[in-house]
Amino acid sequence: MSPKSGTPKKNLMLFAGRSHVELAEEVAKHLNVTITPQTLHSFANGEIYVRFQESVRGTDAFVLQSFSPPINEWIMEQLIMVDALKRGSAKRITAIVPFYPYSRQDKKHKGREPISARLIADLFKTAGADRILTVDLHTAQIQGFFDGPVDHLHGQNVLAKYINDNYGDEDIAVVSPDSGRVRLAEKWAQQLGDRPIAFIHKTRDPDKPNQAVANRVVGDVKGKLCVLIDDMIDTGGTITKAADALKDAGAGDVVIASTHGILSDPATERLSKAPVREVVVTNTLPIPEEKRFPKLTVLSIAPLLARAIQEVFEDGSVTSLFDGSA
Amino acid sequence: MSPKSGTPKKNLMLFAGRSHVELAEEVAKHLNVTITPQTLHSFANGEIYVRFQESVRGTDAFVLQSFSPPINEWIMEQLIMVDALKRGSAKRITAIVPFYPYSRQDKKHKGREPISARLIADLFKTAGADRILTVDLHTAQIQGFFDGPVDHLHGQNVLAKYINDNYGDEDIAVVSPDSGRVRLAEKWAQQLGDRPIAFIHKTRDPDKPNQAVANRVVGDVKGKLCVLIDDMIDTGGTITKAADALKDAGAGDVVIASTHGILSDPATERLSKAPVREVVVTNTLPIPEEKRFPKLTVLSIAPLLARAIQEVFEDGSVTSLFDGSA
Amino acid sequence: MSPKSGTPKKNLMLFAGRSHVELAEEVAKHLNVTITPQTLHSFANGEIYVRFQESVRGTDAFVLQSFSPPINEWIMEQLIMVDALKRGSAKRITAIVPFYPYSRQDKKHKGREPISARLIADLFKTAGADRILTVDLHTAQIQGFFDGPVDHLHGQNVLAKYINDNYGDEDIAVVSPDSGRVRLAEKWAQQLGDRPIAFIHKTRDPDKPNQAVANRVVGDVKGKLCVLIDDMIDTGGTITKAADALKDAGAGDVVIASTHGILSDPATERLSKAPVREVVVTNTLPIPEEKRFPKLTVLSIAPLLARAIQEVFEDGSVTSLFDGSA
Amino acid sequence: MSPKSGTPKKNLMLFAGRSHVELAEEVAKHLNVTITPQTLHSFANGEIYVRFQESVRGTDAFVLQSFSPPINEWIMEQLIMVDALKRGSAKRITAIVPFYPYSRQDKKHKGREPISARLIADLFKTAGADRILTVDLHTAQIQGFFDGPVDHLHGQNVLAKYINDNYGDEDIAVVSPDSGRVRLAEKWAQQLGDRPIAFIHKTRDPDKPNQAVANRVVGDVKGKLCVLIDDMIDTGGTITKAADALKDAGAGDVVIASTHGILSDPATERLSKAPVREVVVTNTLPIPEEKRFPKLTVLSIAPLLARAIQEVFEDGSVTSLFDGSA
Amino acid sequence: MSPKSGTPKKNLMLFAGRSHVELAEEVAKHLNVTITPQTLHSFANGEIYVRFQESVRGTDAFVLQSFSPPINEWIMEQLIMVDALKRGSAKRITAIVPFYPYSRQDKKHKGREPISARLIADLFKTAGADRILTVDLHTAQIQGFFDGPVDHLHGQNVLAKYINDNYGDEDIAVVSPDSGRVRLAEKWAQQLGDRPIAFIHKTRDPDKPNQAVANRVVGDVKGKLCVLIDDMIDTGGTITKAADALKDAGAGDVVIASTHGILSDPATERLSKAPVREVVVTNTLPIPEEKRFPKLTVLSIAPLLARAIQEVFEDGSVTSLFDGSA
Amino acid sequence: MSPKSGTPKKNLMLFAGRSHVELAEEVAKHLNVTITPQTLHSFANGEIYVRFQESVRGTDAFVLQSFSPPINEWIMEQLIMVDALKRGSAKRITAIVPFYPYSRQDKKHKGREPISARLIADLFKTAGADRILTVDLHTAQIQGFFDGPVDHLHGQNVLAKYINDNYGDEDIAVVSPDSGRVRLAEKWAQQLGDRPIAFIHKTRDPDKPNQAVANRVVGDVKGKLCVLIDDMIDTGGTITKAADALKDAGAGDVVIASTHGILSDPATERLSKAPVREVVVTNTLPIPEEKRFPKLTVLSIAPLLARAIQEVFEDGSVTSLFDGSA
Repeated sequence: MSPKSGTPKKNLMLFAGRSHVELAEEVAKHLNVTITPQTLHSFANGEIYVRFQESVRGTDAFVLQSFSPPINEWIMEQLIMVDALKRGSAKRITAIVPFYPYSRQDKKHKGREPISARLIADLFKTAGADRILTVDLHTAQIQGFFDGPVDHLHGQNVLAKYINDNYGDEDIAVVSPDSGRVRLAEKWAQQLGDRPIAFIHKTRDPDKPNQAVANRVVGDVKGKLCVLIDDMIDTGGTITKAADALKDAGAGDVVIASTHGILSDPATERLSKAPVREVVVTNTLPIPEEKRFPKLTVLSIAPLLARAIQEVFEDGSVTSLFDGSA
Repeated sequence: MSPKSGTPKKNLMLFAGRSHVELAEEVAKHLNVTITPQTLHSFANGEIYVRFQESVRGTDAFVLQSFSPPINEWIMEQLIMVDALKRGSAKRITAIVPFYPYSRQDKKHKGREPISARLIADLFKTAGADRILTVDLHTAQIQGFFDGPVDHLHGQNVLAKYINDNYGDEDIAVVSPDSGRVRLAEKWAQQLGDRPIAFIHKTRDPDKPNQAVANRVVGDVKGKLCVLIDDMIDTGGTITKAADALKDAGAGDVVIASTHGILSDPATERLSKAPVREVVVTNTLPIPEEKRFPKLTVLSIAPLLARAIQEVFEDGSVTSLFDGSA
Repeated sequence: MSPKSGTPKKNLMLFAGRSHVELAEEVAKHLNVTITPQTLHSFANGEIYVRFQESVRGTDAFVLQSFSPPINEWIMEQLIMVDALKRGSAKRITAIVPFYPYSRQDKKHKGREPISARLIADLFKTAGADRILTVDLHTAQIQGFFDGPVDHLHGQNVLAKYINDNYGDEDIAVVSPDSGRVRLAEKWAQQLGDRPIAFIHKTRDPDKPNQAVANRVVGDVKGKLCVLIDDMIDTGGTITKAADALKDAGAGDVVIASTHGILSDPATERLSKAPVREVVVTNTLPIPEEKRFPKLTVLSIAPLLARAIQEVFEDGSVTSLFDGSA
Repeated sequence: MSPKSGTPKKNLMLFAGRSHVELAEEVAKHLNVTITPQTLHSFANGEIYVRFQESVRGTDAFVLQSFSPPINEWIMEQLIMVDALKRGSAKRITAIVPFYPYSRQDKKHKGREPISARLIADLFKTAGADRILTVDLHTAQIQGFFDGPVDHLHGQNVLAKYINDNYGDEDIAVVSPDSGRVRLAEKWAQQLGDRPIAFIHKTRDPDKPNQAVANRVVGDVKGKLCVLIDDMIDTGGTITKAADALKDAGAGDVVIASTHGILSDPATERLSKAPVREVVVTNTLPIPEEKRFPKLTVLSIAPLLARAIQEVFEDGSVTSLFDGSA
Repeated sequence: MSPKSGTPKKNLMLFAGRSHVELAEEVAKHLNVTITPQTLHSFANGEIYVRFQESVRGTDAFVLQSFSPPINEWIMEQLIMVDALKRGSAKRITAIVPFYPYSRQDKKHKGREPISARLIADLFKTAGADRILTVDLHTAQIQGFFDGPVDHLHGQNVLAKYINDNYGDEDIAVVSPDSGRVRLAEKWAQQLGDRPIAFIHKTRDPDKPNQAVANRVVGDVKGKLCVLIDDMIDTGGTITKAADALKDAGAGDVVIASTHGILSDPATERLSKAPVREVVVTNTLPIPEEKRFPKLTVLSIAPLLARAIQEVFEDGSVTSLFDGSA
Repeated sequence: MSPKSGTPKKNLMLFAGRSHVELAEEVAKHLNVTITPQTLHSFANGEIYVRFQESVRGTDAFVLQSFSPPINEWIMEQLIMVDALKRGSAKRITAIVPFYPYSRQDKKHKGREPISARLIADLFKTAGADRILTVDLHTAQIQGFFDGPVDHLHGQNVLAKYINDNYGDEDIAVVSPDSGRVRLAEKWAQQLGDRPIAFIHKTRDPDKPNQAVANRVVGDVKGKLCVLIDDMIDTGGTITKAADALKDAGAGDVVIASTHGILSDPATERLSKAPVREVVVTNTLPIPEEKRFPKLTVLSIAPLLARAIQEVFEDGSVTSLFDGSA
């Protein structure tokens, strides 16, 4: 008798935490799979319990979780799911993280701070994630926080296409709401066809000594349709003040485009009242009814996620989805 | 000229998360130190931010966090604090965890479950904790989940002393509320002076075919003061049913003693109504006013924590606090 | 020209240390494979040498070792075999450990003790084992000591079936020989059809002040067939004293059932003389002729091991062999 | 007899690679130590050999290397020195890296690229470095690439002080040479007293279809003294084109300030000819005679490095050197 | 709907650094593949940049680099290529290292030295290499420096065959140029048909007190054809002095055979002038025109590398290429 | 109130396994300490138990174990002791390994072999050893197997001094018993004052076709006192055959010197009968009465171990004990 042999098989399984079931279901539909059935709940004292109802042995597992509040709850939930997959002998585990949590704490702004975005990467690794698939990181350097492959999808392509389709004929300027996103604005400007760019410079106002900060528009926006861009909108303070400053500076109209619609209070109120024509975001984060408002447009990131998962599963090329950029 | 030289110094600093400030302050008082001042808050979307207001370079850091709900929030908070200490060049970091979270998920009860208690140990390690100091683990094996020293304090000594002082003259039987804690009951029985023990056996009742489970008392409790013990009381279901079964079996009085008073709803209601004379717990977890009830006695674990921290800091012996048992 | 491509193959190879060749051969037979030929011997000074006689490149390797004395010898042997497989480019290495060594040192009972069961897990990991396959761990928490998948098989199912087939019609009580195995007794009681349970409480005898310990039976055993259960029988002291206590308490007959028959001296002598009808164990450990005695029944664990290996190799479900319990 | 005991000592030793001996000697002088004598040379085939001539056992070792060409040579040299210190039982090893190599490859710009800046951090860790001390990282996120403490010094403070002392009375605008450094320009603007900022927008010129890129100045620079800032000057192409663009846009005078003077060919030629009044850099990198030119001012970073080393050695606060910013 | 499934594929891709393109191309030809197209260059300041022009996702990657000067440059280049493959989701990465760099620093010869050969192994591991394939290590123990499989090819078989074909009929003695290679000489002696061996003993000459070292031939070489062997020829000092000593001792002819022809200056000059008939090396290292000389014969290692790669890719046996020796 | 502070203390504690208590006690005496009291025994099934009877918190722990048979037993014992020290919060743990086990399996001699000497190093690391202190490694490369500092002591200095004192006036030749130790013979020859060297070449004897191997002496030994050296004597086969060959070749007298006296059967018998004047070893391994014989001289390694421990504890220089060689 000789050793047993055979041909290995591979199969794709999709898993979803409780944070954004709608998105997971949309991705599943695009992939033509069902979300793996599971028992997943919190005990009375808040501890999370998970058990998968089908064997996960040898599977190529994709675990989707989004990071709206309660954000730390959802982080622990995804880590626990990954641990269960590792101990259940999944072959490969990809954490799908449409919005990377703690991405703004990607460096020490001051001494004795954590670098929480690196910590998050290490926690995923420790739990057993082999790879991460994410969308529009706050800074691209976060890719380097993970010791393994990171597939970094460009959600802004989805947004840019929408802007181009709807506003492409107007006299556009791309505007960064602060000095840290000007590079991003430059990329947008290219995607929209070599448009001019501007940004808002926060500075102490020399004329009003008692007022701490003024928003100075740097660049020419007069009469233009300003596409005010950012990677995320949290409470909306910075971006609505930027919109005000643009209008003060003579801008024609303002359209806001941002991948991640966190929309923490009072973002909805601020954006509703702000002098903007439209606010466009994707659904990397769940946007419940009560946060929606007439001017808000939500584009779906699900087709992009599904295509990327497909490429990863089949050893295709994710880069090719974005013409080579990472 | 020759190399610079000197004598190293060591200093103890105490840090506290937001979960149980009262306990931290009590520990600080016993240690005669102040809690290190810090900026610690949650942003609008739930991400936690911490910064210490004093240099932590070279310090022997002790970081206390308790794990009441929102339990996952507090886990992430402690991990982030540890990360900040590591990156701020603390010399040694001890995570003080009076109640170890997810300790009941210390094994796979069924296939495709996580072992969350091991995951927690690994997360602490990854964040940068060098050691763990904890009280009355759900199972002592959890010590082995951490790759480093674990100081495991015996909170039940505090409880046993109280029971002995208040009920020592009575005809005591020690009772485990289920089959899994009989060993613990045996230890209690020794501490209280070689008392008899009993336990509750959950079984299907042969006489009532439609009723799924009956609680049979195994062991003799008739007329005795039953000290019903457990490591933790969560919703109180098991332990109050045990008390009922004891009364049904002719027990005299019932006193409940448990280190960790989780007291998730409806524990307070159940315990208030249960046929018990007194419920004794420690303050390893915060017990807010609304969870308290007349029969509840809360003993402080702070003196024990403070003594253990002192021994760790001074390279003394923690074991000696417990006559050698680990 | 383009990159070479092909379809990967997988093949199963079984390897066996010298501790329990009989079991390995039985497993091989069930799997319809042969044990991989190897050169394996000890040099004059005790150092172990191994070399496999066939290529192991890319194989799915299963390495079986049992842990009878000389136990440390066999541990080192298995580690060295795993190292040779790792360096020989095996694709995946599963350590098959029917009896997990040092499983009783799974926590610090006192200060300044090791946690050897965790150390063993780490040694396997360090040598290169990707996974562990084991039977009836002393405590299930040991699963969490290994940083990777552990397939934990239930040998007691084999035993329980035997007891049911042979004694199912009698008036059975399941008895734990001490306070630490009552939970296990409860599981047995369910498997045998909701039987009553009892246990032996070790206590100082108040009536005989000079005699250190008495064994008190807690629970009703009068006239019943007592199935005295444990995970392992080492020197047999505890379990034969338990049998004596049961008879003193009026038990009808006593049958002992235990997965692991370590049977260190003087177990055979004690069990032969003890007031028991039958002693049932499995062959997770080798039981040489000189340790056998008339009342001893040895059931084979090989079919279960073989089925589990098959499931692991084919990415099937091990959990399904046990109706979902892990 | 009882265990031997004593009081530990600590001593600081400074080590220097061959890349920038001048800086190391200056640092040594400020610290009042000598560089540890060593044998350090390259063999005929380029392999590097090092041996320290004094015992390094138990020392607090600081190893300084700068990263001018041959940059990969110097990386390997520092790694080898760190390895020798680790194996020679140094107690703590700090890699002093005034200019962090490969810092511009801090993310994947396109698919299938490395993240070399993360790799460098991992190489230091692997060799045995416990900590890194560096100056003005290309992006602050690189701190998060290292799994341990990073002391990040602000060289731009040294530059800003110089600019303020020499040009503080003029009508200054701070200018970023491209869209990625506008945030940095904003910080400079604050340090120089709330000055206006501008940046150069690289774009395709719509008027000249055959010319790929035009440099558009965004922001008002007319008649102002433009302080053109960057973290490093490599070949000088971007920054001298920026200077040209500023002059074209009507700027008064241009002064360039940058921490790291890489000055690869043809930087010296370009800067000499460029319409700039002064170019100010620090000596984080060696600047040999042949690269110097009349308008170049080189400020020493040595006092800052020496103070930081002192704080690290004495468990003081590095953060305090920079008013809390990290 | 159910999980997606399929059959995995595997494909071999060959990558080459810039150190020895000729060898890589020869290997590619033998394997019938092309070297994967890439962008690979050094920036002005010496930092290396790489990007692969085809998707590497899921590939079995073989990365060939040789280590002639600038040796540290080529080390960093290979590490960066490996990092790019890891982050680009290659499935398995084998570093092909025909000449292992720093192999002579495989131990501490004196205190406070590095063990650079171990460091190199760790650097490869850290960058992401899963395995190493190398030829004739300076000492075989270096295999043990890498934590993973090392395929160690025997280049000397190629050389020995050549010697046997060309000189097999003569009266051969195998000679080690120093005391450290006598074991190697013994192996050669066996391969050439049980020939006698000798070696050169470096010693102080008692007759000439002012002359530090004399080369004494130990063993009988009179009138014989001496095959002077070594694993590498660097500057050629030792080996040409050995040739001189052999001639002084009455040797007939001298032929030098060595796997690695480093040939640092002044090796070519020394060897040209030395009293030797032929010098035989392989092309594990590039040997440019200017280093070649009439007596030099260069054998190709490419067929052996290609066969080994093939075996690794197809899970065959590399050992079988060498009759079992590792 | 402010943080508690103080001056750290350090204390040295010596621990000893059961393999060579005599050596440990001798070392303790030289260090003027006592061996730390402990409970250390094997259970009936061979599992080892250890508990230290004094607190080890914060200590500088030195754990001595020698590796005579049962060698694997002693390995596990030392690993378990190290684990107990790690979990008991020892500050630093040095494994003292006078004879490094499995040192001859330091490479793959053939395919599919382990590299057990590397495995041993990794096991020590995993258990928690920070450093290793050892004597005369079989090959110095083993230093590089451990990821941390290794203090490598030169036992042969002790032997060489003895030889010089007792035989220095005679006409000495240093002889290696095989081709692999000629370098070692060269070092001895230097230490004994530039003596000539020889070695034994194992070869097939062309004159006796049926006899597999002949021992040819290479080098001149006629009439000389041959100091036959090796690092270890195991069964004594090689070295006594070498002595025979030397006598056959006309040697005057033969003296054997070797650091490690393993003396496995039938070494004592062989050496007693062999034509040698004296056999000199050290006590790195225990040499029980029954293995001793009249010609055997055992030198103590304890003074050297004690001095090295002292240097390590006090951050002195171990290298200085050997004039710089490692």
